[in-house]
Amino acid sequence: MAPIRQLTVIGVGLIGGSLARALKAAGMVETVVGGGRGEANLRRALELGVVDRYELDLAEAARGADVVLVGVPLGAMRAVFDAIAPVLGPDTVVTDVGSAKATVVEDARAAFGPRPSFVPGHPIAGTEKSGVEASFAELFRRRKVILTPLAETDPRATAKVRALWEAAGAQVVEMSVEHHDEILAATSHLPHVLAFGLVDTLSRWDDSREIFQFAAGGFRDFTRIASSDPVMWRDICVANRAAIEHALERYMEDLAGLLALVRAGDGQALEAVFRHAKQARDRFTAMLEQ
Amino acid sequence: MAPIRQLTVIGVGLIGGSLARALKAAGMVETVVGGGRGEANLRRALELGVVDRYELDLAEAARGADVVLVGVPLGAMRAVFDAIAPVLGPDTVVTDVGSAKATVVEDARAAFGPRPSFVPGHPIAGTEKSGVEASFAELFRRRKVILTPLAETDPRATAKVRALWEAAGAQVVEMSVEHHDEILAATSHLPHVLAFGLVDTLSRWDDSREIFQFAAGGFRDFTRIASSDPVMWRDICVANRAAIEHALERYMEDLAGLLALVRAGDGQALEAVFRHAKQARDRFTAMLEQ
Repeated sequence: MAPIRQLTVIGVGLIGGSLARALKAAGMVETVVGGGRGEANLRRALELGVVDRYELDLAEAARGADVVLVGVPLGAMRAVFDAIAPVLGPDTVVTDVGSAKATVVEDARAAFGPRPSFVPGHPIAGTEKSGVEASFAELFRRRKVILTPLAETDPRATAKVRALWEAAGAQVVEMSVEHHDEILAATSHLPHVLAFGLVDTLSRWDDSREIFQFAAGGFRDFTRIASSDPVMWRDICVANRAAIEHALERYMEDLAGLLALVRAGDGQALEAVFRHAKQARDRFTAMLEQ
Repeated sequence: MAPIRQLTVIGVGLIGGSLARALKAAGMVETVVGGGRGEANLRRALELGVVDRYELDLAEAARGADVVLVGVPLGAMRAVFDAIAPVLGPDTVVTDVGSAKATVVEDARAAFGPRPSFVPGHPIAGTEKSGVEASFAELFRRRKVILTPLAETDPRATAKVRALWEAAGAQVVEMSVEHHDEILAATSHLPHVLAFGLVDTLSRWDDSREIFQFAAGGFRDFTRIASSDPVMWRDICVANRAAIEHALERYMEDLAGLLALVRAGDGQALEAVFRHAKQARDRFTAMLEQ
């Protein structure tokens, strides 16, 4: 018998769908119940075998679950938590996959009170695509998942969530909510803002059609994340605004320095920056490939 | 008999090596002679069959060539032009692959005087890798190559260079030097500066080791171009500094606007920017895949 009798996934998108697939493939779950607002997406999830049944009523979806995974945009977390709160047993583990943790924790405490079986989480994985169609069981393999257990979190609940992600092939680490939000602002939220910003800027230039026509592979890679879901990223920018603001300010200061070097034609100083960046980036890539 | 008896490639790197491979594969050239300063690289080019022989003396390399392709960093162009000038016949076609055209044209005019058989060019292709090892014959297939013929350029020389690139599978377009430099500043030079700048910024944060550890695929794609050759990019930033300065200033203004939206928590306005950027980026990708 599978360790988890019923897993409920609220928001069967890229992340929720991929975890459901991975856990089914690993024999970790008996039944996956999908919940969410978009019936077309849930029907597709059923057709694809990602869920075994679905419910449009979130409380009905969560009823009887051993684990509820909430994979909705940050702005929708509170409403989901409110909707499922009445049907949760004390041991029902609730976890989420939100890209910023502070507001999720606020929302959870507001909806549930201090809940020992709530475990905030965030898989560092994804693509610029969204929706259950884009989900696949291998998405989390060798990826990192950050859990940010709270003072009130029961270590057994954390262990249960950890086991899920490990079964999906991920490497699980724990850290504080604040630290998570700072790190993700730097490595994920800031680059997304920069990429969205660049494409937006260029697309409003007079000759933007021509500009894009002569863009090549480097530009395609650089702007890939600008194809991400606008609603998800709106919510992230609002939820984690303090850390993003800080990261963006630091970056803009450094960019002003680079602008001064370009203006002065200071090739030596530019080369030093580029060389330093290339070394750091090559080290990072080597680390990722290990 | 192949249309070109001798092609000399000065700087047998990613671009020069790939064009040599493509033209050999297409039966367009009889003999490829490599020229450059790094003997190890030239010996490797010979072993790989990219060149048929090589010369460390650039004049010797260029002697007897029908076409000389100069594929060196922008800062090295002038010295190469000076070195080969004495051995060029009036009909020897000289072309280059520099990423900014104004300074190359200046350098060519200084070395050659007004030369009807000089054709400035720039293939919009490449990867973050460099060197002959990274070269491959298919690099230019379905890529754009921009030629910027000058007032003094002989249309027959332009046609000859066009034929080379078309034989390598590229689509050739012509435009003015100024227009080329503006467009490339936007789609290539600016993103490179931003990516180098971001990696440099983050690598100097206190917790940079940890930051990179939690970076994912989106970050890897976004920063891929920060693994590019620092010397090449130093030269581009110096050579095309006016256009890069302009593009960077416009971007920084828009970034200041985004920062204000983040600071204000203005989700609606952020979503509008992100949605607009995603649409533009998705259109661009569709165009690229056509």
